[in-house]
Amino acid sequence: MAPLGERSDDPVLPDPPQGPLHVARARASFPWKELALFWEGEDTLRFKKAIFSTLENDPLFAHPRGSRLSVEKYQELNFLRCKRVFEYDFLPVGDMLGSLPRVLALIECLGMYDWSLAAKFFLHVLTFGSAIYSSGSERHFKYLPKIFSLEIFGCFALTEVSHGSNTKAIRTTAHYDPSTQEFVIHSPDFEAAKFWVGNMGKTATHAVVYAQLYTPGGQCHGLHPFVVQIRDPKTLLPMPGVMVGDIGKKLGQNGLDNGFAMFHKVRIPRQDLLNRSGDVTPEGAYVTHVKNVGQRFSESLGSLSSGRVAIVGMSVVNLKLAVSIALRFSATRRQFGPTDKEEVPVLEYPMQQWRLLPYLAAAYALDHFSKSLFLDLGELQRGLLGKDRSVRQAELGQACGGHGYLAMNRLGDLRDDNDPNCTYEGDNNVLLQQTSSYLLGLLARRDQVPLAAYEWLVCYLLRESHQKLSQETRSGKSDFEARNDCQVYHCRPLALAFLELTVARRFHEHTHQPRVPPPLRAVLQRLSALYALWSLSQHTALLYRGKILPWTLVTELMNPELKDDAVALVDVIAPPDFILDSPIGRADGELYKNLWTAVLQENKVLERASWWAEFAVHKPVVGSLKSKL
Amino acid sequence: MAPLGERSDDPVLPDPPQGPLHVARARASFPWKELALFWEGEDTLRFKKAIFSTLENDPLFAHPRGSRLSVEKYQELNFLRCKRVFEYDFLPVGDMLGSLPRVLALIECLGMYDWSLAAKFFLHVLTFGSAIYSSGSERHFKYLPKIFSLEIFGCFALTEVSHGSNTKAIRTTAHYDPSTQEFVIHSPDFEAAKFWVGNMGKTATHAVVYAQLYTPGGQCHGLHPFVVQIRDPKTLLPMPGVMVGDIGKKLGQNGLDNGFAMFHKVRIPRQDLLNRSGDVTPEGAYVTHVKNVGQRFSESLGSLSSGRVAIVGMSVVNLKLAVSIALRFSATRRQFGPTDKEEVPVLEYPMQQWRLLPYLAAAYALDHFSKSLFLDLGELQRGLLGKDRSVRQAELGQACGGHGYLAMNRLGDLRDDNDPNCTYEGDNNVLLQQTSSYLLGLLARRDQVPLAAYEWLVCYLLRESHQKLSQETRSGKSDFEARNDCQVYHCRPLALAFLELTVARRFHEHTHQPRVPPPLRAVLQRLSALYALWSLSQHTALLYRGKILPWTLVTELMNPELKDDAVALVDVIAPPDFILDSPIGRADGELYKNLWTAVLQENKVLERASWWAEFAVHKPVVGSLKSKL
Repeated sequence: MAPLGERSDDPVLPDPPQGPLHVARARASFPWKELALFWEGEDTLRFKKAIFSTLENDPLFAHPRGSRLSVEKYQELNFLRCKRVFEYDFLPVGDMLGSLPRVLALIECLGMYDWSLAAKFFLHVLTFGSAIYSSGSERHFKYLPKIFSLEIFGCFALTEVSHGSNTKAIRTTAHYDPSTQEFVIHSPDFEAAKFWVGNMGKTATHAVVYAQLYTPGGQCHGLHPFVVQIRDPKTLLPMPGVMVGDIGKKLGQNGLDNGFAMFHKVRIPRQDLLNRSGDVTPEGAYVTHVKNVGQRFSESLGSLSSGRVAIVGMSVVNLKLAVSIALRFSATRRQFGPTDKEEVPVLEYPMQQWRLLPYLAAAYALDHFSKSLFLDLGELQRGLLGKDRSVRQAELGQACGGHGYLAMNRLGDLRDDNDPNCTYEGDNNVLLQQTSSYLLGLLARRDQVPLAAYEWLVCYLLRESHQKLSQETRSGKSDFEARNDCQVYHCRPLALAFLELTVARRFHEHTHQPRVPPPLRAVLQRLSALYALWSLSQHTALLYRGKILPWTLVTELMNPELKDDAVALVDVIAPPDFILDSPIGRADGELYKNLWTAVLQENKVLERASWWAEFAVHKPVVGSLKSKL
Repeated sequence: MAPLGERSDDPVLPDPPQGPLHVARARASFPWKELALFWEGEDTLRFKKAIFSTLENDPLFAHPRGSRLSVEKYQELNFLRCKRVFEYDFLPVGDMLGSLPRVLALIECLGMYDWSLAAKFFLHVLTFGSAIYSSGSERHFKYLPKIFSLEIFGCFALTEVSHGSNTKAIRTTAHYDPSTQEFVIHSPDFEAAKFWVGNMGKTATHAVVYAQLYTPGGQCHGLHPFVVQIRDPKTLLPMPGVMVGDIGKKLGQNGLDNGFAMFHKVRIPRQDLLNRSGDVTPEGAYVTHVKNVGQRFSESLGSLSSGRVAIVGMSVVNLKLAVSIALRFSATRRQFGPTDKEEVPVLEYPMQQWRLLPYLAAAYALDHFSKSLFLDLGELQRGLLGKDRSVRQAELGQACGGHGYLAMNRLGDLRDDNDPNCTYEGDNNVLLQQTSSYLLGLLARRDQVPLAAYEWLVCYLLRESHQKLSQETRSGKSDFEARNDCQVYHCRPLALAFLELTVARRFHEHTHQPRVPPPLRAVLQRLSALYALWSLSQHTALLYRGKILPWTLVTELMNPELKDDAVALVDVIAPPDFILDSPIGRADGELYKNLWTAVLQENKVLERASWWAEFAVHKPVVGSLKSKL
């Protein structure tokens, strides 16, 4: 395959700029452009390059230098950029379902630029849009063109002030009134206000609102989604009975307007019940094709799964940015050395390699995992729409939970923006409980679990968890208590080990397949080995116990060859400098020059403080206020 | 001892407000006021109460509600508050050296209120002030009254753009010119600019600047501190030859102005060399009482130690705030339960206890550790000023390094403000290397190391590290290489285990001493056991290997009794609500009411966005810009 970079005057993969990183790049054992092509595929590379270049060339997307934006200004700018993304129409709506890799690439590109923008855009188009598409029926399809023309703006309102994870306990109600054929949406008190809802703070005109459905006579049929208009699209003022506002400044993603809403007997047409799992006749009778209440409940929340898969993807994108910055910095930052005169790049220190290289391997392993998970989800959703109820479907469905957490390099705004990934869509420990429940179920069906250290570990923990759970149940504890008392030392490590094994296995299979180009095999297999060993090294105590792990294995983790490939591996996953937007992470490696330039571009850097007279003229009288003590 | 709270109309320890947390408090096994008195002492309790009340009653210290401050406004307000602290004169300068517990309490009170304020105040008074006091001589004492009257404002300038940890490589120069009896301070290029210096950005008029001292003829005598005037105190404009400015927005502590400075042949009087470790005669001869260059170097940097000890203290204060918020939230937040109707506080879940209670124990253990370390440092510094050069002095001196890192609960601004604690004063891994070097030195002197699991672990790691290091050296590696290759799996875990043991042992001794009041013994000993076991549980693999640790020990970590004491233990370490400033952490436990109130107090919460017409009127034409792709 001809190298991509040499095909035209505007190569998809331009050579990195000359600079101090050149030395490190020259030591790489593999051709980085070939890895980029293998890793992403040519279509995705071209697609991403087009998006990145478009953003870089549009002044609306210029990074603000000097004074920082207020939250209000940031939200306005973020909305304007979101509108501009519609004008660019990178991925026409018709192509979305047919091109999942492009959807993923668009999330990655917008997210690498600014998560507030990506969240605003995708919460409207994908979360709101697909909730209507997959929970509703033909009578709701009228909303879809309005979403894509921005006639309406959407949000997804499930969480309440006092209830997130325990969705069954949600208290917003929807009473059906047959006299007017309307539902009455109502929040009993402020603890039942919808809360944290992205896009609801200032922008959304419509919300998918989850509420307990009551039919005349007072029977409750459980949680159902409704389309509720919350603002007038002509004025953005609230609709009658709706109190809606912004929840205030968050630790990150402040370009996104997270909001709250309370409903005071807000009436909506009967047709705005999203009726895939249950419907109400004009007369007020409840009808459903799903007999089992639990299954109906799960189905009504199915749209959360795509959110959870997206969270894995978003975290990986942040990891890719973070390792790019940290490794380029480490390859150029020099400190100490064998003599007082000669200093070496900090990446040459085994300690620094041990701190960073596993995260580089993790960026690749998890990048592959999140992409393959996303494709699995696509398969699942196509199946669901086609009413496929096979066991394979159920397995695909369950395995999507619980991945929303990974260890992050902490680099500035990245971390602030990534933190929500660890919180939304349910506390991670709650999701891990779901995963271990699934595994305990597998044991009952005596599924085969293959060999090797990780597999031994999963089997071991599975057996221990099963025994512990049986023992707790036999001792007379309720199911609730018994499961609780098994979490910390049994079910939680089991769930984690299973997920780690899954990621390691997928990465191993991907890097050992025959279609990996020969010059890339060695480096990819080293990455795969490092990731699996690093991941496994958290479990040394148990592996000792099972006499599975020789001590020497852990010390082989450190692979000096990978150190020399690190900068080139980063070149494959790093976006262009404009998007990376980090002086210490720029591709040329001119660490201090870039840092210094950025400092001097800030606002009023060298100017005297406006309040200088408070120091120079108005001196304190020390102790003058002391009597007040 | 009579309960403190009942002595007057304005009790030092008022009863907590009634509210949902009342139930949790009633379950505590011990009287919390008695613990507060034992833990802090009456003088400190009264001192802290006076400071907290003063801040709460002064409108200058009111928390800004509604719109957030710009960095510039925040820095102005922070300076005004700093000035006000001088007016209150909580701790007159004469009392400072004599009352270390009050110094510590003042740092804690100002820090709990706002780290930007504490940093601004103490960098000027303690860091700058004590650098002059302890590195200078009588001829410099003229600066001290100017510090306390705010006639000048100080900063401490060691770090350069390209050198932090490796202080020997610092490149700012000070050439002595006998013709005018001046030093010429010069930055060779921007990589040698002083950088990150707190108070330098906009406020400081004077800096203690570290530079390589050259005498006529070109001989370099190594790094020395100089007092350099950088701004005119009458105008706050820079002095000739000084380029000084603010380095820009940080992740936290933005009320503090961190700055940079480049010196272009700035001339200062010969007398402004801080001459404790070396001086230059008017004619240009270098004179010193410290013959050994290494010792002179260490001595000139001695003032860093107090900074490092302060970092431990600051991190502990943040941990105290964070566990207070997290535990009060967990005792009131309900989610799921044995039945669909009944929900339980999340603190009732073993998983939540396992996640939080060890941090509560750590808050107590590290609070005690940091205070005792601070008192040790006081002892050391009094000894240094008295020229005590004993082995005990050397031990006290060395053991102060390396503690600047502890696992943090992540709660919003706390984390942002705490992050710098993990970075300044030297990379933690560098400090750990120093610690393990010290321990290897101990082995050579065949010091006794006592028994018990932790002690076994330290001995084991010490022996392994020693063997590994000898082996690497014998194999022909240089000392630099050999030490490098031992860090990851030998010297680093050794240093960590030693420090953990030190903290656990001090906490154990403190909680088991005879003067602990009987009603407090059980709870304090449970805290001590939990902390030691939790800390030890990171090393299970090695403990298995040494057959030291029975598996059951780890599962005994969970102590349900401690769960019932958690809220009362938090009452002892939490500051008043005004200082804690967290709606979900208020003492009354009215979780949702407080949260809701705070949301509605924000600015323009319910108002339509000012840019509403950008949505309602100016609609995008989807794909209109597509041709640009």
